Amino acid sequence: MTRIVRTVAELREQVRAWKAAGEQVGLIPTMGALHEGHLSLVRLAQTRVKRTVASVFVNPKQFAPHEDFDAYPRGEARDAELLDSAGCDLLFAPNAAEMYPQGFSTTINLTGVSEPLEGAARPQFFGGVATVVTKLLIQAEPDIALFGEKDYQQLQVIRRVTRDLDLPVEIVGAPTARAEDGLALSSRNAYLSPQERAAAVALPNAMKAAIAAVQAGERVEMAEAAGKAALEAAGFRQVDYFDFRDADDLSRLGPDALHGSKARLLAAAWLGKTRLIDNMAA
Amino acid sequence: MTRIVRTVAELREQVRAWKAAGEQVGLIPTMGALHEGHLSLVRLAQTRVKRTVASVFVNPKQFAPHEDFDAYPRGEARDAELLDSAGCDLLFAPNAAEMYPQGFSTTINLTGVSEPLEGAARPQFFGGVATVVTKLLIQAEPDIALFGEKDYQQLQVIRRVTRDLDLPVEIVGAPTARAEDGLALSSRNAYLSPQERAAAVALPNAMKAAIAAVQAGERVEMAEAAGKAALEAAGFRQVDYFDFRDADDLSRLGPDALHGSKARLLAAAWLGKTRLIDNMAA
Repeated sequence: MTRIVRTVAELREQVRAWKAAGEQVGLIPTMGALHEGHLSLVRLAQTRVKRTVASVFVNPKQFAPHEDFDAYPRGEARDAELLDSAGCDLLFAPNAAEMYPQGFSTTINLTGVSEPLEGAARPQFFGGVATVVTKLLIQAEPDIALFGEKDYQQLQVIRRVTRDLDLPVEIVGAPTARAEDGLALSSRNAYLSPQERAAAVALPNAMKAAIAAVQAGERVEMAEAAGKAALEAAGFRQVDYFDFRDADDLSRLGPDALHGSKARLLAAAWLGKTRLIDNMAA
Repeated sequence: MTRIVRTVAELREQVRAWKAAGEQVGLIPTMGALHEGHLSLVRLAQTRVKRTVASVFVNPKQFAPHEDFDAYPRGEARDAELLDSAGCDLLFAPNAAEMYPQGFSTTINLTGVSEPLEGAARPQFFGGVATVVTKLLIQAEPDIALFGEKDYQQLQVIRRVTRDLDLPVEIVGAPTARAEDGLALSSRNAYLSPQERAAAVALPNAMKAAIAAVQAGERVEMAEAAGKAALEAAGFRQVDYFDFRDADDLSRLGPDALHGSKARLLAAAWLGKTRLIDNMAA
């Protein structure tokens, strides 16, 4: 059975015992509501290290007051079962008081890669992500930590803060897990009505079409405009962005210049009350 | 001889070798221009741990553009000699590119204890301090880290960020080292002319008088006003603050309420072009 611990002290004691025994450790930070994407990270970790630790913490600091913190899906029993079935060794499930004790007053902020796209739409988001992930990396002291490319900008932010703070851990990005029709797996997909779920496939389809168009010689800004139009035609009520960007620092690409393998298409759009994001190598 | 290393990789390799051999490690972060205060931290560390590491790095991020970064006293050969005479095992002396490589974009910010006093006078200061000290603690992975009470608010900020980020290190504060006349030792005392140096003793004297007055029943705000007046009479051209504060979170004390052993008197004042700070338990 996957062991569950709720305090930093217990987490650290277990990880240090493993490391003292010469066993390397991989951390998979999550907000719970686990799906096949998270489990694929556990399995990827198992190919690299002997011991795997998943954390489940719905981090209040990365939600704005109007966002879905209270509604965010939670279900520890099911999460623990899924981790157990994947052979995960330890589940770290702290409560908010363990993570942010009385008097907590520190925030880790980034400039640059954190500013466009999700950072523009959600101003506190990456400060909250950087703070909690840094804490988790310091708490768990893993050899590697794994994150899905689904949250691509988050992955780049975490790579940056890990390097900037000299955290002694290797950050591993893993390909986005997708449903059979191509929709990226996300805990927020649970919010979609059956009609919305059917319409959602327009997001990866519009992205694949835009990438194919650009590779065939279409101008980047034309492909972006066509992608947005396709999403609106499919019933998305707002497109926050549908942008080709530099794959490392997420800066804008020139109108004609596709950076070859260094470009990435990133998109965020609203279907009813649900905001979906996705990204693909371009 | 004290060994000198300039890269995080060399630092970590040496510290990890010591720890693997069961030897605990103490870190003394400094900006160089070492004096007896710093050496007393090395000696205090030696009573607690087997190995001592001093870092010397004049941190550009904690100086505002108009402050004395370029003029700040530097002299590595003398610093290394002093550390050697104190029996310090390792000097970590990175350059700016090792500490802040190309693309560096992370800042650690605090609210609360960082905001009044030095934080009000120097808005970027504690963000710069918190960022570089966090990096040093992550780079060196010491068991304990030692800081002088001379920079009392800095010590409280470092205690807070260490707790908030779960850094696995004990922060040790050490009493302020003072010249025979009572002036707190500071690298910035080197800026004082002989006349200014003679006048500077008014700072600790005014503080001792204010504490004695309050302990004898004087109202806090009256003692603060008298202290400021005494400094101005002694030739200080500006008093930034001369405040009784809560010793933990540095919040203001009520006009009559002295918190007993939990109060601290903190002061900052300008003598010509030099800004002196000091603090005492009240």
